[in-house]
Amino acid sequence: MSSCPAPPPAATAAVRPREDHGLADRIALSAATGRGAQLRTEDVHAWLAERRRAHVFHVERIPFAELGEWRFEPGSGNLVHRSGRFFTVEGMHVAEHGAPFGDGPRREWQQPVIRQPEVGILGILAKEIDGVLHFLMQAKMEPGNPNLLQLSPTVQATRSNYTKAHRGTDVKLIDHFMRPDRDRVIVDVLQSEQGSWFFRKSNRNMIVETVDEVPPLDDFRWLTLGQIAELLHEDETVNMNARTVLSCLPYRDTSPGALLSDAQLLSWFTGERSRHDVRVRRIPLASVRGWKHGVETIEHQDGRYFKVAAVAVRAGNREVVSWSQPLIEPVGLGVTAFLVREIGGVPHVLVHARAEGGFLDTVELAPTVQCTPGNYAHLPAADRPPFLDAVLDAPPSRIRYEAVHSEEGGRFLNARSRYLAVDADGTEAALDPPADYIWATPAQLRALTRHGHYLNVEARTLLACLNAVAARPQGKA
Amino acid sequence: MSSCPAPPPAATAAVRPREDHGLADRIALSAATGRGAQLRTEDVHAWLAERRRAHVFHVERIPFAELGEWRFEPGSGNLVHRSGRFFTVEGMHVAEHGAPFGDGPRREWQQPVIRQPEVGILGILAKEIDGVLHFLMQAKMEPGNPNLLQLSPTVQATRSNYTKAHRGTDVKLIDHFMRPDRDRVIVDVLQSEQGSWFFRKSNRNMIVETVDEVPPLDDFRWLTLGQIAELLHEDETVNMNARTVLSCLPYRDTSPGALLSDAQLLSWFTGERSRHDVRVRRIPLASVRGWKHGVETIEHQDGRYFKVAAVAVRAGNREVVSWSQPLIEPVGLGVTAFLVREIGGVPHVLVHARAEGGFLDTVELAPTVQCTPGNYAHLPAADRPPFLDAVLDAPPSRIRYEAVHSEEGGRFLNARSRYLAVDADGTEAALDPPADYIWATPAQLRALTRHGHYLNVEARTLLACLNAVAARPQGKA
Repeated sequence: MSSCPAPPPAATAAVRPREDHGLADRIALSAATGRGAQLRTEDVHAWLAERRRAHVFHVERIPFAELGEWRFEPGSGNLVHRSGRFFTVEGMHVAEHGAPFGDGPRREWQQPVIRQPEVGILGILAKEIDGVLHFLMQAKMEPGNPNLLQLSPTVQATRSNYTKAHRGTDVKLIDHFMRPDRDRVIVDVLQSEQGSWFFRKSNRNMIVETVDEVPPLDDFRWLTLGQIAELLHEDETVNMNARTVLSCLPYRDTSPGALLSDAQLLSWFTGERSRHDVRVRRIPLASVRGWKHGVETIEHQDGRYFKVAAVAVRAGNREVVSWSQPLIEPVGLGVTAFLVREIGGVPHVLVHARAEGGFLDTVELAPTVQCTPGNYAHLPAADRPPFLDAVLDAPPSRIRYEAVHSEEGGRFLNARSRYLAVDADGTEAALDPPADYIWATPAQLRALTRHGHYLNVEARTLLACLNAVAARPQGKA
Repeated sequence: MSSCPAPPPAATAAVRPREDHGLADRIALSAATGRGAQLRTEDVHAWLAERRRAHVFHVERIPFAELGEWRFEPGSGNLVHRSGRFFTVEGMHVAEHGAPFGDGPRREWQQPVIRQPEVGILGILAKEIDGVLHFLMQAKMEPGNPNLLQLSPTVQATRSNYTKAHRGTDVKLIDHFMRPDRDRVIVDVLQSEQGSWFFRKSNRNMIVETVDEVPPLDDFRWLTLGQIAELLHEDETVNMNARTVLSCLPYRDTSPGALLSDAQLLSWFTGERSRHDVRVRRIPLASVRGWKHGVETIEHQDGRYFKVAAVAVRAGNREVVSWSQPLIEPVGLGVTAFLVREIGGVPHVLVHARAEGGFLDTVELAPTVQCTPGNYAHLPAADRPPFLDAVLDAPPSRIRYEAVHSEEGGRFLNARSRYLAVDADGTEAALDPPADYIWATPAQLRALTRHGHYLNVEARTLLACLNAVAARPQGKA
């Protein structure tokens, strides 16, 4: 060390406020803007249809034996890519132990699961156009989407895509997210994906603003949050990755408070995470009990839950690329719903602390109802999911939001669910719900999306939809 | 559903503010109060000495063969209790893969590790006495503490302790923490423990206020935060569990801001967590490479890092209980330090995104320096921990805080470290540090302790110490 150190150059450096309140205003303005600078909302479908025509998209189910680069690994029976990259389909053994607070007998099961231990980037580029924040959405094909092409984030990239390991085409615009300008990051958080189908998967959810010129690209359009809110009311238009990224936007809380303080909400969550003792281990796919391995699918012996399937894909516009891959195909249409209740004039949703085998840590916050009703049809009424009837029987007058959305089409085939927000009446959902449910405001949930592993991906979709409901009355272009 | 539902009883329920600002005032008052209602600070040592005399404490090293209820499991060689409970000593294989952002070659190692997959409770009871919050501290013996008895939380209980599974004595005062009164919870969060020695261990850190009469108990005393701050300046007086719980207190941020906004700090952290690809698997203890199994210890072939040892314990006051158990014994005195720098008049600490094999998720925020210098003595200077010299060479005038503390004495034997906060000069620590370091204010770190898996346990100890430094000038009883 020098005995005459230079004067610290940063002695005069300034501090900034810990929160950027101006950003919340800019987000509110974008949400209130129903007319976009580049494309009218009513023209989005024509543009999507045009992009669908401009590309070759062909997806076909194939037997596992025709999965060119994929094979069942000798011994384990795991479904792996010859390169060792992308993802694997393996087995998972889940046991909920102990239940010290009296929540019933031990549950234990085995199932196939997708393992993809790398962190991907889901990034939306933002830019002020005519003084209003716009978000660059991509018209993107994914083989598992029922309608193939949906609005997706600017960038969806696996680690293999965005590192030099990958020899393929560079991901467009990825540089904005690889080393983001610290002063222009709006959202940047690791969030979990489906714990029922993925083993501990998380992706980096990002929104980064740019002041640079972004060259126009055929598959990309700038939309305001008000426009996206409108599109979120339509079936299978905004893809899962876009929904989860948008759910993390730091909207301002304009309500006077909540039934429980944030500290109380977190204390309840800590209690739920502590009392659930979920032990999970990976097992060879070949050894998973209760699942049948067929020529074209691996499926549950009773035909429930999901299948592992395989598809061949041809896609592209100028250059046609083709590949084959496994996908997880759920059995039946899901129901994913928040019960909603006004408390002290403030809407609250009934949140569930839900254990899924693939979560990194026991439970995450889930919608009130998240299930495929068919999986419970064989069970007595007492074993059906709580609040399912309250959702299914709700008259139209109590439905605040409803649309069918599909889950990530790069891994899931026709994974469709009805997403709902339904007004509860007091008889269905008391202020003091069962121990693993709690009333929280959307603003409280939004605050938690700043951190990972609180809200599961289905709750994040519903949160994005609730944001869309809140934005909508501001007017439609 | 009834066609005539009862009017919702809660239509008139009120909301409350999401944050309890009054609590921060009460914490500040307790921190500013150096004279306790029950015991003067200068009398704490006499009380601790008296409790030491009142108990039988005898701890003796023994060979593994004399570990009555513990044995090396045939096959795996894991060290396990015959009941299958408590904890196990197993092996862990750690590999840091990939390094896509260019942070060097793959690192890979094996080591013994403690596995204890249950969540324990570390709980401090709080109560207003004469209008000031006091905290109920226990004089508790732990076999690994060099001085055996230290100030600990009101309650330290494993899940086995606090569930009916346990046949032993009930843990005193545990009821306050098992089902806490929602309106009186001050801290309630799952925090990680040492990722170098534990496999994915976390404990529930709690502070719960009571208005009930608490019967006086010989081993317990009520102290203010000002008194505890004073005691945190002394060596090996406040135990690790007390330090981590106290670090989570929601002190108010009285500074005007920080070098980076909270969103920027979290974005940096997300980037660090994403770019580290740490893969960890449990392996049999018998197969751990590079470690020697002896009669009394399992130790590293070069004598570095730590040993697995065994002790026999006799303890108690009226009823003497005895048991034997393994402990992890680090080799050498650790150095755990924050470099501190005033930026815009606000003290900042240099935080490190540190990978430890036992973390649930890749990296957590750690002190600037956290190492045992002896483990690096054989390496060239370039491979020594960054900033270690800046800490070791700092003149006394730049040391804001220094004390020796020990880690949890129920699992670690003589695990002592010098904890320091050292003023940096500009030449040592630039405002733009290496990619895995960042400047943050203590208030920013305190805000993160509301959530788990951000600050590692060593950073939490230092944060409790920094809180103590801030409290101290207010006067000593």
